[in-house]
Amino acid sequence: MILFYSDYLEGCHPSILNKLQETNLHQTPGYGEDDFCGQAKETIKNICEAPGADVHFLVGGTQTNMTVIAASLRPHQGVLCASSGHINVHETGAIEHSGHKVLPLPAKDGKVCAQDVCAALEAHYSDPSFEHTVQPGMLYISFPTELGTIYSKKELLEIKKVCSDWEIPLFIDGARLGYGLEAEGCDLLLKDIAQIADVFYIGGTKQGALFGEAVVICNEKLKTDFRYFIKQNGGMLAKGRLLGIQFDALMKEGLYFSIARDAVRKAQRISEAFRKKGYDFLVESPTNQIFPILPKEDEERLSSDFGFEEWQKIDADHIGVRFCTSWATTDEQVDALISAI
Amino acid sequence: MILFYSDYLEGCHPSILNKLQETNLHQTPGYGEDDFCGQAKETIKNICEAPGADVHFLVGGTQTNMTVIAASLRPHQGVLCASSGHINVHETGAIEHSGHKVLPLPAKDGKVCAQDVCAALEAHYSDPSFEHTVQPGMLYISFPTELGTIYSKKELLEIKKVCSDWEIPLFIDGARLGYGLEAEGCDLLLKDIAQIADVFYIGGTKQGALFGEAVVICNEKLKTDFRYFIKQNGGMLAKGRLLGIQFDALMKEGLYFSIARDAVRKAQRISEAFRKKGYDFLVESPTNQIFPILPKEDEERLSSDFGFEEWQKIDADHIGVRFCTSWATTDEQVDALISAI
Amino acid sequence: MILFYSDYLEGCHPSILNKLQETNLHQTPGYGEDDFCGQAKETIKNICEAPGADVHFLVGGTQTNMTVIAASLRPHQGVLCASSGHINVHETGAIEHSGHKVLPLPAKDGKVCAQDVCAALEAHYSDPSFEHTVQPGMLYISFPTELGTIYSKKELLEIKKVCSDWEIPLFIDGARLGYGLEAEGCDLLLKDIAQIADVFYIGGTKQGALFGEAVVICNEKLKTDFRYFIKQNGGMLAKGRLLGIQFDALMKEGLYFSIARDAVRKAQRISEAFRKKGYDFLVESPTNQIFPILPKEDEERLSSDFGFEEWQKIDADHIGVRFCTSWATTDEQVDALISAI
Amino acid sequence: MILFYSDYLEGCHPSILNKLQETNLHQTPGYGEDDFCGQAKETIKNICEAPGADVHFLVGGTQTNMTVIAASLRPHQGVLCASSGHINVHETGAIEHSGHKVLPLPAKDGKVCAQDVCAALEAHYSDPSFEHTVQPGMLYISFPTELGTIYSKKELLEIKKVCSDWEIPLFIDGARLGYGLEAEGCDLLLKDIAQIADVFYIGGTKQGALFGEAVVICNEKLKTDFRYFIKQNGGMLAKGRLLGIQFDALMKEGLYFSIARDAVRKAQRISEAFRKKGYDFLVESPTNQIFPILPKEDEERLSSDFGFEEWQKIDADHIGVRFCTSWATTDEQVDALISAI
Repeated sequence: MILFYSDYLEGCHPSILNKLQETNLHQTPGYGEDDFCGQAKETIKNICEAPGADVHFLVGGTQTNMTVIAASLRPHQGVLCASSGHINVHETGAIEHSGHKVLPLPAKDGKVCAQDVCAALEAHYSDPSFEHTVQPGMLYISFPTELGTIYSKKELLEIKKVCSDWEIPLFIDGARLGYGLEAEGCDLLLKDIAQIADVFYIGGTKQGALFGEAVVICNEKLKTDFRYFIKQNGGMLAKGRLLGIQFDALMKEGLYFSIARDAVRKAQRISEAFRKKGYDFLVESPTNQIFPILPKEDEERLSSDFGFEEWQKIDADHIGVRFCTSWATTDEQVDALISAI
Repeated sequence: MILFYSDYLEGCHPSILNKLQETNLHQTPGYGEDDFCGQAKETIKNICEAPGADVHFLVGGTQTNMTVIAASLRPHQGVLCASSGHINVHETGAIEHSGHKVLPLPAKDGKVCAQDVCAALEAHYSDPSFEHTVQPGMLYISFPTELGTIYSKKELLEIKKVCSDWEIPLFIDGARLGYGLEAEGCDLLLKDIAQIADVFYIGGTKQGALFGEAVVICNEKLKTDFRYFIKQNGGMLAKGRLLGIQFDALMKEGLYFSIARDAVRKAQRISEAFRKKGYDFLVESPTNQIFPILPKEDEERLSSDFGFEEWQKIDADHIGVRFCTSWATTDEQVDALISAI
Repeated sequence: MILFYSDYLEGCHPSILNKLQETNLHQTPGYGEDDFCGQAKETIKNICEAPGADVHFLVGGTQTNMTVIAASLRPHQGVLCASSGHINVHETGAIEHSGHKVLPLPAKDGKVCAQDVCAALEAHYSDPSFEHTVQPGMLYISFPTELGTIYSKKELLEIKKVCSDWEIPLFIDGARLGYGLEAEGCDLLLKDIAQIADVFYIGGTKQGALFGEAVVICNEKLKTDFRYFIKQNGGMLAKGRLLGIQFDALMKEGLYFSIARDAVRKAQRISEAFRKKGYDFLVESPTNQIFPILPKEDEERLSSDFGFEEWQKIDADHIGVRFCTSWATTDEQVDALISAI
Repeated sequence: MILFYSDYLEGCHPSILNKLQETNLHQTPGYGEDDFCGQAKETIKNICEAPGADVHFLVGGTQTNMTVIAASLRPHQGVLCASSGHINVHETGAIEHSGHKVLPLPAKDGKVCAQDVCAALEAHYSDPSFEHTVQPGMLYISFPTELGTIYSKKELLEIKKVCSDWEIPLFIDGARLGYGLEAEGCDLLLKDIAQIADVFYIGGTKQGALFGEAVVICNEKLKTDFRYFIKQNGGMLAKGRLLGIQFDALMKEGLYFSIARDAVRKAQRISEAFRKKGYDFLVESPTNQIFPILPKEDEERLSSDFGFEEWQKIDADHIGVRFCTSWATTDEQVDALISAI
């Protein structure tokens, strides 16, 4: 069986394991106050061209989302988000557990648009009972989205303008950031993300690390006391160095981007194979996740040799599925799948 | 400089790194539903002689405490705890952030006693305004405590009896469990802990793992839906296998215990050296943390070559400090320190 | 100006003021432990034919909703609710502030149906990632709904069956309960509500009291420690007797029902007048709130002499509005409005 | 039986009932946006000599405390408070339910001192692990305290200076504010409270109203969006006018102060009677609550004709008790008690 279920099926990129091996006996202070973390933060700020940003390392995505949102909102505020957004559907109510309503927006292929964000804000403030409703206090988007789609620079700038006009921060969940930046047709660089977002994160878990997400806080107002929030939300890793070591390995020589590029290329080869055979797709995704629609019999046939995720039932005879690639996906695995298609 | 600041200064025990290396390319499902986790859970249940227990793996201590407590209490309930307990003083209010008051009890050398637990419960229920106060809904103790001390089997059984009488669960924070079980004079085995506690955890982070805590739920009532709570509290690691692999390595051939035994022995050698020189101690600790009281000049002298933590000011001329050993502490390091003493 | 904005525009029914006057100097213990409350609870249990129920008095609706829900759910659970339900749209996220996600269901004229409730529960438990999503732990419905509509006995029994099958409690928000029970076509009595709901409340604020909601807990499991929750949620009135006195006045001789009947009759007279003139309605409501759709010019004309609420824009020329009656609405006021129509 | 249990044993001052009667049929908008509230707010600002303050009306004390604190703190912050403070001991963890730790300070006769506040703040910021502990974000004091004692102007100014130096707001719980201001020896006026506090409230419930607390926000930073918080915390009364009407009656012609003065005088007569007979006191209180220590046999004798509260056991033979007076206490009741003493 060859598995394409997700991009977190294996351990980590070998260069990370090597680094962990090399540094294993170094003695460092805990909680992310070591030199490995210091070094990795500098590297990230350089690549982001954001010398004034604050960088923090957390362990996982849900933890990062709940920590950033808790640190940004007051209790009467909620977070605007595509109805398909991860915080709205797949975090067991972690945001509500912190006291905040997720305010779902219409989503098209996982994306929100500036008009809908603006409409939601206008609707709130023009409601005479506005104080009886949750105040939108932040916009959360994913790049790429949960459906593998990406925003163009123009779209992001339009969204950002609405956020600025209404004075709410823009938070970009970058759990798979590299796969988005390396997608065909993406006209954004990491530094653009750092310029547009008030706060975002660079996902490690799904891009070659054992675990880890690097939060970059660009907006001065969101920086205050952030480390208290990491601790309060259970994200302050005792051996914080592990995060510094991993992000150092990922970011220093462009590994993060080459991993992503390679995985995207492989996913698109698979996509192309399905397309050639005339399959439709749930959504056109240019990143490392693809979503073909399979007739039942093809799904059954393929699933005897390959693992992939059932995503959405279409009708009695068809199902939308997800194939995912990662740093660990080999050309042989992709070739085997393509032959089977 | 040789550092004795804590037991999380280095990476992890080499056998864990080897295991991570070996298994790195295995493909497994995420979120702890893999065979490594399954295997490690079985091993832990066996060692605990608790075939009916549920075992879950989380990343860190604060996260584990807040998750277990959130899953156990109703909103009007608080958690009884030594005033010096970790959840009361060192978790940035994570428990209160989840909505629960920590109800501090008098602590002697970090320990609570059955009488004080009973008194607090009696005081609550005999107060005519009891509904205007927080209901004690759980007892949290640390074994060993934050001051390195341990409970005897008799003490634990007395405490447990009070908890049973008043129908509140007993939760044992075992972030350093092995160091307690391997302490000179400890008359408890892991299986005793599993029999006495309603829920407890076996700490990995401070005993040789990169990170990880294994929660063992013995009380049927506390088991329901626990995985939802792990996710909601940000503790559901995508590559959950990492926890299974580490605990498998630690628990399978007794490594967890031999690591602890060795670290305790080294700490006690240091302790003995201080004692011989006539130093007093903040507290008599038989585990891997020791707390000598140093005259200022000695503290300064030692701190030029060794790292240790300032714990508590005694007077203008004396300070209580902490030295910690771990799996990574070598005989050479201990010898160097003893010479300096 | 004659106002039809809402059913809480005036003070309270005169018989309540009289009762407050009469009892003003009686000395009673606080926090609802007085004889007035005791008496009113007995009366309510009698009318509900629910001798085993627990009755508690709270001050307002949002407070009651958040208290009942907090007392019923565990943290990983959310509350199913019509998307138009009060807790979802008009309580400034009070439910989320308590940590729980509101799980919106499709609503038709403010109502949910058994099939949709069942579908939501099935969808949750058949999702392989169910632990990554919020568990539906309660169903909240309003009777009558926020749009003045009512459920039939058959509909309620079907809904209840789904709740029983899936073992979640049914919570009925009865902020305007009497107006529903006294509506033309309603085939439910208060005792039916008490039999069908696991917990519900009898609204006083909108039916002649100064303030107050009487929670009736029928399901044994939801009773434990409820008074702690009232206190914790700020609803434990020091002079709790005020609630007992008011509910005693309302419930003892059927005043609650006659007030409602009269207000409903008046609202329906207004409705009839609009209907005769050929106006459409946003929704057919048989209770004390009606929702005609007015052409802009009619809206402007009427609003010079009458107060009513803008509810929903239909198009550039039409608007749906709300007229509300109450115990305080006089025949003269209704006649004046009908003439103007 | 004549009851001295508390200052909320009766309904309300007759002039309030009259006002409710007079205004009963006036139609007003809900939620505190009516003219009665507007008028009462102006009156309060005038008496406070605080034209720039914001005034809001809430129903009860716990609700007010939790709302003000929730609106003032970020999640990682706690509230400093005398260990005997109401929020620490008698609100069923309402503050923790909102996510905030109460940080108890040493209390002497219910009071904190500037030095202890300062020491707590210094201890926090000088702790190298400060981010692992709850940040003190506000100081809460009661005036008068739960033990009936009062602060002098000098004490309050010293406390305020510490708060200003460390940039945390000072919140004064004035549930019994009038009784403090009218106490013998008090050198503070309401306007001083308004100048010193960042936010405080004028208690109505315990001083002649049916219910109600008037929050006065003096510090600009604490004003933003406060009404959302009232709603979210269940304190937005539908018939908000009731609060305006009551506070208008209480504040307009000095009734609030004359009620308090009279009650204090009566309590002090009782106090004097105990003193003359040689009884000791738990604490010297110059307000409307007094705390004599009674031998068991005297307690039993008095309790056959009078109601008073057991406050604190002293030894096998003695108990500290509380007698409370209010607007409703008559000279006859006091005389009867004094005779019995």
